[in-house]
This record gives sequence, structure tokens and C-alpha cells, in this order.
Amino acid sequence: MEPVDPIVQDQLINRAVEHAHAHHDTYLSRFMDFLRIESVSTNPSYQAGIDQAAEFVRAELERLGFDQCAILPTEGHPVVYGEWLRAGADKPTVLVYAHYDVQPPDPFDLWESGPFDPTIRDGKLYARGAADDKTGIWGNLKAFESLLETTGALPVNVKVMFEGEEEMGSPHLEPFVQSEKERLAADLFIASDEGYPPGQPLNTYSARGIVAAEVTVTGPENDLHSGQYGGCVRNPLHAAAQIIASFHDDNGHILIPGAYEGAIPLSEDERTLFSGLEPEIIAISKQSSGNFEPWGEPGFGFVERASARPTLDVSGMYGGYQGQGGKTIIPARAGFKVTMRLAPGQNPDIIAQRLVDHVMAFNSDTAAVNIDVLVKAWPALLLRKGPVIDALNRAFEAVWGKPMRPDRSGGTLPILGMVQQELGVPMTGLGMSVGGFAHAPNEYIDVDSFQTCIDTAIHFYVNLGQRGKAEIG
Amino acid sequence: MEPVDPIVQDQLINRAVEHAHAHHDTYLSRFMDFLRIESVSTNPSYQAGIDQAAEFVRAELERLGFDQCAILPTEGHPVVYGEWLRAGADKPTVLVYAHYDVQPPDPFDLWESGPFDPTIRDGKLYARGAADDKTGIWGNLKAFESLLETTGALPVNVKVMFEGEEEMGSPHLEPFVQSEKERLAADLFIASDEGYPPGQPLNTYSARGIVAAEVTVTGPENDLHSGQYGGCVRNPLHAAAQIIASFHDDNGHILIPGAYEGAIPLSEDERTLFSGLEPEIIAISKQSSGNFEPWGEPGFGFVERASARPTLDVSGMYGGYQGQGGKTIIPARAGFKVTMRLAPGQNPDIIAQRLVDHVMAFNSDTAAVNIDVLVKAWPALLLRKGPVIDALNRAFEAVWGKPMRPDRSGGTLPILGMVQQELGVPMTGLGMSVGGFAHAPNEYIDVDSFQTCIDTAIHFYVNLGQRGKAEIG
Repeated sequence: MEPVDPIVQDQLINRAVEHAHAHHDTYLSRFMDFLRIESVSTNPSYQAGIDQAAEFVRAELERLGFDQCAILPTEGHPVVYGEWLRAGADKPTVLVYAHYDVQPPDPFDLWESGPFDPTIRDGKLYARGAADDKTGIWGNLKAFESLLETTGALPVNVKVMFEGEEEMGSPHLEPFVQSEKERLAADLFIASDEGYPPGQPLNTYSARGIVAAEVTVTGPENDLHSGQYGGCVRNPLHAAAQIIASFHDDNGHILIPGAYEGAIPLSEDERTLFSGLEPEIIAISKQSSGNFEPWGEPGFGFVERASARPTLDVSGMYGGYQGQGGKTIIPARAGFKVTMRLAPGQNPDIIAQRLVDHVMAFNSDTAAVNIDVLVKAWPALLLRKGPVIDALNRAFEAVWGKPMRPDRSGGTLPILGMVQQELGVPMTGLGMSVGGFAHAPNEYIDVDSFQTCIDTAIHFYVNLGQRGKAEIG
Repeated sequence: MEPVDPIVQDQLINRAVEHAHAHHDTYLSRFMDFLRIESVSTNPSYQAGIDQAAEFVRAELERLGFDQCAILPTEGHPVVYGEWLRAGADKPTVLVYAHYDVQPPDPFDLWESGPFDPTIRDGKLYARGAADDKTGIWGNLKAFESLLETTGALPVNVKVMFEGEEEMGSPHLEPFVQSEKERLAADLFIASDEGYPPGQPLNTYSARGIVAAEVTVTGPENDLHSGQYGGCVRNPLHAAAQIIASFHDDNGHILIPGAYEGAIPLSEDERTLFSGLEPEIIAISKQSSGNFEPWGEPGFGFVERASARPTLDVSGMYGGYQGQGGKTIIPARAGFKVTMRLAPGQNPDIIAQRLVDHVMAFNSDTAAVNIDVLVKAWPALLLRKGPVIDALNRAFEAVWGKPMRPDRSGGTLPILGMVQQELGVPMTGLGMSVGGFAHAPNEYIDVDSFQTCIDTAIHFYVNLGQRGKAEIG
């Protein structure tokens, strides 16, 4: 297709950005109205807040001229949907994801101002949901508004899907996405649910999956006296320790057959990149998490081990007497909790079965083993290169003065993995704030970043509109 | 030496037993006075009861005509001592051990009559200390009294050592014994601190030693997020499990080098004996302790594994998150409690060092291992055959109609092991009651057994007096 004239493009951006700046106070003031809504998803006593927030967002979409604006029911809290598809059939269609629900505000007494009484102090806006994730909704909508008001159109086709159960673990989103595949079809999925560190845009393009399980080992009917029965019965704690010891070799390599199946290794350029960043990343990690000795599979760097390698950790273990001093027993029962992180490319159903098979091989008459798989989630691999990342980097360079730093997360973002599996769509992230204390008292965003992120989004969507739908992904 | 004429001996026994029966009510009534004394050793608020009980016993020894009667100080509660050494230099000298202190009586509201208000109901005498261990003192003293009153002498030389800290773990007895070796010198140590099951005298001639320790493994400074750090740090729970898994092979054989050093195996006749008793012992164990699957080192029977083999059991383990559901952490710290039981013949100092060396070999930069040895106690091997056991069996046959059943304990009796090490004297046990609920509410003895055990003791001491001091041990 015909590229848009660069001069015309710059004019589009400038006019929309000027509009956003001119309306900063209105945009911010209305955002604070949004923050006043007590849309806590986990506690049923906040149901009115959930309903009010969903309607607030739906009405705003309608006001902007979006079509099909609707509060779509799920088995739990609803999804707010809207679309603006008049950019042309040759333009990419983006599906923007964020969530209108927030974490519970307790403990109230640690807040310097009320969690639902948004307050600006020293350039920071404090309120529950300011960072996580009402900016994700509002920043996008205000970028769209600025473009629509100044150009009468959006540079790409846009669908938005704002959910209300993210802070509950999105228990009803998967069936919703499965049943709404047609409505949600898009060329690019944009997740607006992360912020950035001050002055440093990140492209977190990889997240690990997860399999979490609980294992119990049962021996004698009751705790037994270790003098009377020591040597005469199997000790469930020994059997549990044997299982745990069987998970790894001495270097931390997982010994469960098939545990690495499907894992996509780092490419050479990623390995070079992260090897250069490793000292800085380890230093930052120690600052934020306390001292530790890096350790792990030989031949893999820190970032690779933390993001591209499957791992297995026992997060808790219990059995027998744990108080002061001793108690001379053979416990009747022992147990532990185990979490595997899955590298991109791995299938949680398959890996969970491998774990179950490995653990159940220890089951015996003298030590009855049980395993319950509690959580399974897919890994996700977002865009790392290509036209979308170029469009993002040009936007960040223009507004922040630097491109995104490539970043891989060792953690799990279950929604991304699930959507990637269900919709098979290329994905990227677009943060909408610099802030902190998400999930904690005194959650905040830098007020400056409210504007900066709207500007960045305007740049990005216009940059993206330069491309035909066939070109991205 | 000249054996005592059997007819003369029978006359001695009969006269003393008749005397004991004739004075049953007085003996029992004075015993109940002894039970009224609140000699709780663990709680300082009972100090007056401790002092009163020690004086009660000392005065009784003096009344019986014992020499050197004294309340000997220790670093804690005193030892009551007395001796009667006029049987002749060629006769054996016995050192009788029991304790005048008792367990705390709480919870009071579960007692049907007051713990220090001795009460007879349905042939049972209820009081704190009735079984454990005031009969151990009183039964011996009344046997001595009956012999002294009827024959003017005792058939053997007698020393008594009644301590006041047994229920505290005898913390000051070892230095006392070390500094009083001359005074306590004897040909036979008689422990009167166990009862018998109804109708079944036992000769518990073996007890295991113990080494108990606590192991901790420390990793990162703080708990770390298992997503962010999984694969990048060593998990202390994995390291702890590795240590535990290293303790045994798949059959429960201990892999710590030297763990079996010194262990005296069962003799062929013991093996034959206990192999015949095994089904009955397992059935009784299941009745008292709940169901379990016997398991352990191949080639060794249940009783041998439970009493003549060193064993190692982890009695408790902890680390990370233990609540409902999951928490995705790598814990900063893990730990476990480990108890080894030592077979007769083993040295707890050596075995403790073996355990420490084995565990500390796992210490590393990434997982700092620490082990604290909390308890060490010697195993003990009492007499199983020979003149003393013959003398006991003849006594039980005469009074109970059956000899003792040989018995080995898998548990630990620290005093016996300690005295055996310090005094190097042959040892046996002489129970003074059939009772129950020691350490619990409604502790009792069968009133019949009060008499039966005095009778048995009279028989035993007269039988033993037939032997020269060179003949026993």
C-alpha cells in the first residue's frame, strides 16, 4: 500500500498531541472521577462499584463515537467492549486490553489519603487503581479522543476489551474469549496493563507459563514414637525429600523426563544482548530483592535462566513437628507445594502431566503419594522485532528520547498466554504510566507520565497506521 | 562361698512376706501420705513439695536403720541417699535408683479426684506419682522394712539413690554421679522406674541412645519471587531435601559413613526369640499406635530394627509457604529436625560427629548449612541372663506364676546409659507397680500390685543374697 506522507503524519501527531495537552486538565479531572469508583472485584460488597465502572467506561466509549459499545456479560464481572473500524479494511485492526477492576484497598490506615479519594501531592496522583490499571483504559481512550477530535478518524481500526476480573485471576475470561472469537478478531493484541520505570520504556516480550501443584505423602495412620518405631516404618518426610531431590541434578537441571520439551531457546542476538545487560540486571535485582548468590544451569546466562528455561521450585514444605526444641516422632504425613515455570513454546497441559507422572512413580504401599495440579497457565511470546516494535520505538524516541529496552519476564501473565492460544494473534504491550505501589497502600502514578503516555500512544497509533494490515505481526 | 540352705531361705522369705501382708494397711496408708506431697520438679512454685518429699524419704530411711542417710545437694533438686552395708563384705552391693519428683498435675479438671488427694476406687489407687515413680521408692523400702523387722538384716548390701529431677530430664545427675563415684560404687544397679503390664513381668534389658539435632539451610537474604528468580538462585528447600535424601538408601539403610559403628547385633538366641514374638508385637503395636506398614532394612526383624539397629528419622521439616493454596516464592530458609537412635554399643559423641560431618559436607556458598546437636544420650544394655536374672525370674515365678518376658526398647532411657558409662556397673530393672496414665490425669496403680511387687522384691533380694558378690554381673 501507499505509505502516508511523513509530513502529513507528523502533522496528524502534532495536532492530536496539542489537543491532548490543551485538554490535560479535563482529561485528568475525568480520570480522577474514574478513580473515585470503588471497582474492587474480589469482594462482593463492592458490586456497585464494578457496575458503575463498567458503565463509566462504556459511556465514555459511546461519547467518543465508538460502535457496538456494550457491557458484555461473563460468568462473573462483565467485559466492556467497543470498536471503531472505520480506518479502512487495509489498515490493521488492534485489540486493546486493560482492566477496570482494582485490588482491595486494605489496610486503609496505611494510606496517606483515601484510596478512593484521588489526591495529587508533589507531582504524584495517589489512588487505588491509578497505576493498575485505570490508566491502561484512560490513556488509550484519551489518545483516541485526541485523534478523533483533531482528525475525525483513528489511524487504525480499534477494538477494546476491558475486563473486570483481572485482580481475581480472570477466572471467566477464557470462556468469554472462546465464545467471542469473531468479535475479538484482530491483527494485533495490545496489552495495556504494565507501567514503566521512570525514564525507561521496556518491551517485555516474553513471559513464562506456570504449573503449580501440591504433593502429599501419607505413611502410618498416626504420628509414631521415633524410638519405638524408628527403623520399622517408612517416614513420609523422607519419601517427600526423595521426591524433591529427584527433581534436579546438582546444577539445577530438571531431571523430569520431557521437562524441557518445546522450550524455545534464546536467539543468538538475544543472548548477546542480555549477556551485556547481565551485571546491571543482577545489581538491580539485588537492590530490589536483597542479596543472593546467582546460581543455576551452567551454559545459560542469568536472563536466559530466568525467562527462557523451564524451572521447578518447591515453594513450601511441611511435616512433623516444627516448634522449638524436638519431638521424637515419625510424622504420619508430609507435603510440599511445587511451582514450575514454563518457557515460551511449552504446553502447560503436557508439562503438568510430566510432573504428575514423575511424582506418582514414587507412590507405594508404605508411602502413599498424591498430587493435585492447582494452576496451569500458558507462557507467552510477544513481538520483539518488526513493524509494530519499530512503530513503538519511534514513538518512545519521539516522546521519551529513547527506544524501549528489550526485556523478558520470568513471571507469568496468564491472560497473555491464554489470549495467544485462543486468538493466535501477534501481541505487544503498551504501558500507560510510570508509577508504583500497585496492590499496596499509596498506589500512585507520576502526573507527568499521564500526559507522556497519552502522547506516546498518539505517536504509536499514527506510526502503526502507516502500515497495511498485511505488514504487521 | 557357702550357699544358703534353701529351706532357710524360704523361711526368710515367708516371714518377711507375712510381715508385709500383716502391715499392708500401714504401708499403704503411709504411701498415701507420701503421695500427698506435691513434689513437682519442673515448676519452681512446688519447691516446698520437693523439699518435703526429700525429707520424707530421708526420715524413712533413718527410721529403717539405714546409715549415712542424707539429702545430698546437686546443682538442682537434691538426691536422697542412704546405705545398709551390714550384709557382709562377700555379699553383693546393690544401688537402687528411683525418683521422688513427679510430673505436673495439670490439667486439673480432667482428674476424677485431686492429683494430690490419693483415692482408692475399684481396686485402683489414683494420684500423681502413684505409678511414676513413688512406688519405685516405697516398694523397695517396704521390702527392706519387712526383711529388717523379721530377720534383723538385709540379704544384700544396699545403697539407695533417689533423685528429684527425673521429670526434668535429670539435668544435674551426671555431674553428681561423676563426683560421687566412690559413694555409689556397687555390684549391681537396680532401676525401679518402670511398671509392668497386668500379669506380665518384663525384663526390658536394652534401650537405644539418641542424638537429636536441628539443621537449617539458608539461601537468599529474602524470600524471592519464583517467577523472577526461578532458575537463578539455589532453593534452600531443595538443598534440605537433598541432605535428607542422602541419609538413607531405598531400603532405609543409613548411608552416613560410620553410622553403624559399634552397634552390637542381636545374638542368635535373641533373634530366634523375637522372631517368634514378632507377629504378636506388631499386632499389639497396631492396637496401641494405629495402623502402619512394617518396613525397613531387609534381613533384620521388626524387634531388631526397633532396638538393635541405629536409625535416623526426620521428625519435622519446614520452609516456605505452608498455608492454603500457593505462594510463588523461593524461600530464604529451610530447616529440619533429625533424631538418630543409637544401638547398644554405640557412642553418642562419635555418632553425633558423624552426623555433623555428613550434613556439613552440603554446606556451600549458595546454601549455607548449619547443624546444632541438641541432645545426646548413651544407649544401655542391661542384664539379660545370669544369676541376677535367675534371681528375678525365681521371684516372679513364685509371686506372679511366670518368669519375665525378655524385652528390648527402641526408646531411650538417658539415666541408664549415663550411669552405665560413669559407674560401669551391671544393671537391671525392678518394677514396683502395675498401673497407668503416668504423665497424664488419673495416674493410678492397681492396689493389688502394691503388695505383689513388695513380695516380689522380698523374694528377689533374698534370692540375690544367695550369691557372692563375685558371682553376679
